[in-house]
Amino acid sequence: MTDSAESEKAPGSLTLTPELAAYLAEQVRLQVEEELRKRGLESPRPKRVALIASKGTLDMAYPPLILATTAAAMDMEAAIFFTLYGIDIIKKRTCSDLKVPSLANPAMPVPVPNIVGVLPGMTWMASWMMKDWMKKGGVPTIPDLLDMARENGVRLIACQMSLDVLGIKKEELIDGLEFAGAGAFLDYAAEADITLFV
Amino acid sequence: MTDSAESEKAPGSLTLTPELAAYLAEQVRLQVEEELRKRGLESPRPKRVALIASKGTLDMAYPPLILATTAAAMDMEAAIFFTLYGIDIIKKRTCSDLKVPSLANPAMPVPVPNIVGVLPGMTWMASWMMKDWMKKGGVPTIPDLLDMARENGVRLIACQMSLDVLGIKKEELIDGLEFAGAGAFLDYAAEADITLFV
Amino acid sequence: MTDSAESEKAPGSLTLTPELAAYLAEQVRLQVEEELRKRGLESPRPKRVALIASKGTLDMAYPPLILATTAAAMDMEAAIFFTLYGIDIIKKRTCSDLKVPSLANPAMPVPVPNIVGVLPGMTWMASWMMKDWMKKGGVPTIPDLLDMARENGVRLIACQMSLDVLGIKKEELIDGLEFAGAGAFLDYAAEADITLFV
Repeated sequence: MTDSAESEKAPGSLTLTPELAAYLAEQVRLQVEEELRKRGLESPRPKRVALIASKGTLDMAYPPLILATTAAAMDMEAAIFFTLYGIDIIKKRTCSDLKVPSLANPAMPVPVPNIVGVLPGMTWMASWMMKDWMKKGGVPTIPDLLDMARENGVRLIACQMSLDVLGIKKEELIDGLEFAGAGAFLDYAAEADITLFV
Repeated sequence: MTDSAESEKAPGSLTLTPELAAYLAEQVRLQVEEELRKRGLESPRPKRVALIASKGTLDMAYPPLILATTAAAMDMEAAIFFTLYGIDIIKKRTCSDLKVPSLANPAMPVPVPNIVGVLPGMTWMASWMMKDWMKKGGVPTIPDLLDMARENGVRLIACQMSLDVLGIKKEELIDGLEFAGAGAFLDYAAEADITLFV
Repeated sequence: MTDSAESEKAPGSLTLTPELAAYLAEQVRLQVEEELRKRGLESPRPKRVALIASKGTLDMAYPPLILATTAAAMDMEAAIFFTLYGIDIIKKRTCSDLKVPSLANPAMPVPVPNIVGVLPGMTWMASWMMKDWMKKGGVPTIPDLLDMARENGVRLIACQMSLDVLGIKKEELIDGLEFAGAGAFLDYAAEADITLFV
């Protein structure tokens, strides 16, 4: 055993040469890698946001789209799974014309008695007002948010079961969508850092 | 020190026999286990889904039940915490007869003006239509989804505080439930991979 | 090489002294620290709950406040991000007077036909009933829950974009709030163990 000056003297009777120390460190690194891999902790990856959009009203179309596009701008991965009424957000015919009822929501910015809210024209008026507020507040429109999402790599996934149940054809939907079931969403969301049901 | 042919030659002056390498690797593995355990990173466990069902309408009863039963079929752990109006989903009297209002939701598949939606019979009609679509789309009924959930190990947890507030007795609820508070849900969800509030 | 009695005998020809074992353990600890740090898994930290409160009705004000205060009592970190209608929960004028509509919710504990639910006074009555049930069930009022939240370190964050859109000034809101955008919420939630959209 050579006892070179630069070798670190391990406690005890064994001489720990720099080479042996490096060898042991590598063994430790490999073992740690393996144990972490077994626990599903792979090497660092981007943060991930998995959202479900289940509502088709104008007010509830904003949260998933704003959260997903903001996440994408922060270099996070993001996907929105459109299901149930949420399909309306990605339908060509409805996406630019979503509505919010002026009814059964006492927290509306301009609350209207329900007896008035049921009258014809009130839903149209509430929807027009909300679009106007959003515009003045600098919030993009729903079609613009959809464009921003697709341009920035947000995955827009249409729930196949919802399409089947509602009898909606793919041609009725906007471009750039994926089609999948609840299982695919769960697979994606199981690796996500943020999961929200809107 | 024997220097057998099959022994790996460690850098430095030390001969690392296969036995010694295996011994060191095991020491490292035990140490890594211990360090990870201290950090709460136990051995691999199934993915876990923690859901809150707070709505008692027919439309919003499907998402938690479909997500939980799908998760169970994928060998994930799943639990649904029924709270507030969500208690209706696990009440004997209401679980097979949940209703969806044809009101205040402009995204209904067959939208009806609110002035019509308030009329007697409209909620019944909307509920009947939704059940019919689901049936044609091959989606199980709510009672069937509840059975599938229990048979596949999904934990169905009734919020004790909601039962107290609403004055509902355990006898009024379906079998196979657990009873717990928000704290128990938070404990479960803190270890979950997917958490959603429906 | 000394062969002391207390040293553990490694297989093969090498004696692993207690000092060498300690040296290896320290190498393992440092390596585990480093690999976990790379994966964003710092030393053990409290569990964290990140909630969005987007509804401003009385019924949907309880879940985020009850979950957050319960989490705080369990030594978890918690924050609520108030956005959209949820701003009503933290407005001085409305926080103690939130309302629940007796409309479009067939799962109300005392369901009322929608044709009756639209009548003037019905929302007031439903709100009064819900407050009464909660009181009898021992659930604190919304203002009390807000106080409990602030006293126990729950972070209450008002969505700046919502304030801008709705034209609400900070003076109109309760004390002890933070102000931030969706990006700040995503940053916080990305490190959370439980994320829920109410």
